Amino acid sequence: MIMEKGISSVEVLPSKSSQVTAVKVVVKEPDTKQTQRGKRVGFVLVHAGAGYHSESKAKEYKHVCKRACQKDSPFTNAGMGSNLNLLGEIECDASIMDGKSLNFGAVGALSGIKNPVSVANRLLCEGQKGKLSAGRIPPCFLVGEGAYRWAVDHGIPACPPGIMATRFSLAAFKRNKRKLELAEKVETDLIQLKKRRQSNEKENDSGTLDTVGAVVVDQEGNVAAAVSSGGLALKHPGRVGQAALYGCGCWAENTGTHNPYSTAVSTSGCGEHLVRTILARECSCALQTEDAHQALLETMQNKFIGSPFLANEDGVLGGVIVLRSCRCAAEPDSSQEKPTLLVEFLWSHTTESMCVGYMSAQDGKAKTHISRLPPGAVAGQSVAIEGGVCRLESPESRTADSSLHCRECE
Amino acid sequence: MIMEKGISSVEVLPSKSSQVTAVKVVVKEPDTKQTQRGKRVGFVLVHAGAGYHSESKAKEYKHVCKRACQKDSPFTNAGMGSNLNLLGEIECDASIMDGKSLNFGAVGALSGIKNPVSVANRLLCEGQKGKLSAGRIPPCFLVGEGAYRWAVDHGIPACPPGIMATRFSLAAFKRNKRKLELAEKVETDLIQLKKRRQSNEKENDSGTLDTVGAVVVDQEGNVAAAVSSGGLALKHPGRVGQAALYGCGCWAENTGTHNPYSTAVSTSGCGEHLVRTILARECSCALQTEDAHQALLETMQNKFIGSPFLANEDGVLGGVIVLRSCRCAAEPDSSQEKPTLLVEFLWSHTTESMCVGYMSAQDGKAKTHISRLPPGAVAGQSVAIEGGVCRLESPESRTADSSLHCRECE
Repeated sequence: MIMEKGISSVEVLPSKSSQVTAVKVVVKEPDTKQTQRGKRVGFVLVHAGAGYHSESKAKEYKHVCKRACQKDSPFTNAGMGSNLNLLGEIECDASIMDGKSLNFGAVGALSGIKNPVSVANRLLCEGQKGKLSAGRIPPCFLVGEGAYRWAVDHGIPACPPGIMATRFSLAAFKRNKRKLELAEKVETDLIQLKKRRQSNEKENDSGTLDTVGAVVVDQEGNVAAAVSSGGLALKHPGRVGQAALYGCGCWAENTGTHNPYSTAVSTSGCGEHLVRTILARECSCALQTEDAHQALLETMQNKFIGSPFLANEDGVLGGVIVLRSCRCAAEPDSSQEKPTLLVEFLWSHTTESMCVGYMSAQDGKAKTHISRLPPGAVAGQSVAIEGGVCRLESPESRTADSSLHCRECE
Repeated sequence: MIMEKGISSVEVLPSKSSQVTAVKVVVKEPDTKQTQRGKRVGFVLVHAGAGYHSESKAKEYKHVCKRACQKDSPFTNAGMGSNLNLLGEIECDASIMDGKSLNFGAVGALSGIKNPVSVANRLLCEGQKGKLSAGRIPPCFLVGEGAYRWAVDHGIPACPPGIMATRFSLAAFKRNKRKLELAEKVETDLIQLKKRRQSNEKENDSGTLDTVGAVVVDQEGNVAAAVSSGGLALKHPGRVGQAALYGCGCWAENTGTHNPYSTAVSTSGCGEHLVRTILARECSCALQTEDAHQALLETMQNKFIGSPFLANEDGVLGGVIVLRSCRCAAEPDSSQEKPTLLVEFLWSHTTESMCVGYMSAQDGKAKTHISRLPPGAVAGQSVAIEGGVCRLESPESRTADSSLHCRECE
């Protein structure tokens, strides 16, 4: 029995801080009940970056999120077509965390692999097999050329640079490079430099931040999270952002002795801001209190925008998708005795917009949404937050292994 | 006036957990008072790795710590002579954090630079200058070839591979490589592989973990922390460990609205264990409670050895040096009105031993010590903890800028 509770209304809440505008979702009570037995049960929430999503391209962004939800593996939409770095190369960051084993895998500044998160996933899986020969500890984080070699040695196909860069990403690179050259020509002395930096901030802030991420939960309440990013446009070669870093890009933690809830988080935005606030883990910790919405809002306000670690920043740019689940008693009128899984899912961002999609496995239909800051709210200083609730009930026939993402190496 | 309270006696405390042996330092009351005016005031604590330090080489390890304390910059003892990776290359990780600005700089898998922490430091300093041309966000973490290029472009001299590897590190590489080849030859089937892995664990555990780190405080109570590591012997190329990772290798945070104490932490040990517990930051947070010794012991017990993130590990290997400071009223018999700075310094490890050194700037004499687990305690399952207290009083003449580590780029 699935009772998908869609987002039904959005209201702007009065804010504690004058800088913060909160958007709250009021969740409608379920109005449809549908029994589906023997099917896969689970829920996936994806994002296609927190940044600026123009109205004219809204359809394309939504399509990306929809496809990401519907794929067996939702972690396939980064790598190819990423931003190019200063030298015109693509270097990607990606990571994945399994809430059941608490294992983690990550790659940074990785070139030549179409889906970097598949390498992160493989690192996680290999790490679960225990020590290497001669007692060596398996790596959980590889970067650059070494990460590429490891991937190819483990059978992950290489992708020539000519295919990695798309026409779109190459055109953006040329445009950005021209802008940079012009900016540097004009910056002839320190005063002009400072002015230029300030005047260009808005320009940079409104650029698309092309991270892709996903959080998932299966019928057992096992959670996982992943994130993949090509990083900022014209970044310095070798720069690694939040998508590769433990606690910063994604987090997943099953319910346990100290955790009443299973939680999964994936982040997007300005890598340096997300790293210095260890935002994914911070959100996960906060979500152990009762009111998920309030907990996430306060985290975005106090631990992100208001973080002492970002006190000198003009604006703090980022977004998160979060999912938390817990078992609850079956509905009184349910024919099944098994408890249902309550899944709360939320997204929150300080960027102008964030594109998300979500789907339950039985449903098979992805919903997509572009969340925007309310009119007048200032990106980098305001928080938008939305979400919904979904109930999942285990089907009668379960597979013995409910592992979410290790299929490929088992 | 300096009242250096040395470590005077060590007693083994009864432990709450049967697995944990605690060693506590009882600090003698000061018996000497010495007035020194107009001199630099500050305190530095360094480590030369948590791992296994043989009695036969104790003198050498202590000498390294002593030299590290006495240098103007204490962050100079990693890079050259590091462990070689599987391909016989040296790839280093290093990071640094400034407790005043809360800025951070890090490099990972960096080759060809003698002192990788100098690049991390330079990244931190450059990051403090604000945005780059065209509004680009300056990187705080660079890896591999990109990090090397950035360093050289910023005037940090390159060091040829032939000089980076020392006779000692090359000999260790050849020895380890032979061991590995032998191990892989013997591992003909899965059962043998498993046996071999188990029997080799001890061997690996007892290897020296060659991280170097430092925590410092100046007369204003500003703290900083740094760490530098060549990583595990025979690591996979591109593997990045805790020394490069935010929250894992080092942490420094000045006193603030929510922090009664300034804290600085630097870690050493098995990178993967230190990463998955975000140990440096965890220690820093814990040290905000009154009893520093108890807080650190509990953190090592519950958040490191007992961490759910390392539940599947046979032994959890690591060590930390920590320093915390707060202002306190001047001694009643003091001729000065300025409050003194109380500095508590501690080290704790689950490895067989840890080599540390500490010094106050006015003192000029470094004390060194090899801390060992008590007889019978099991490495990876037991905690050793020791430390001391020192009072610093600001000299009459102060320099206007008390920045600890940004001298080179100001």
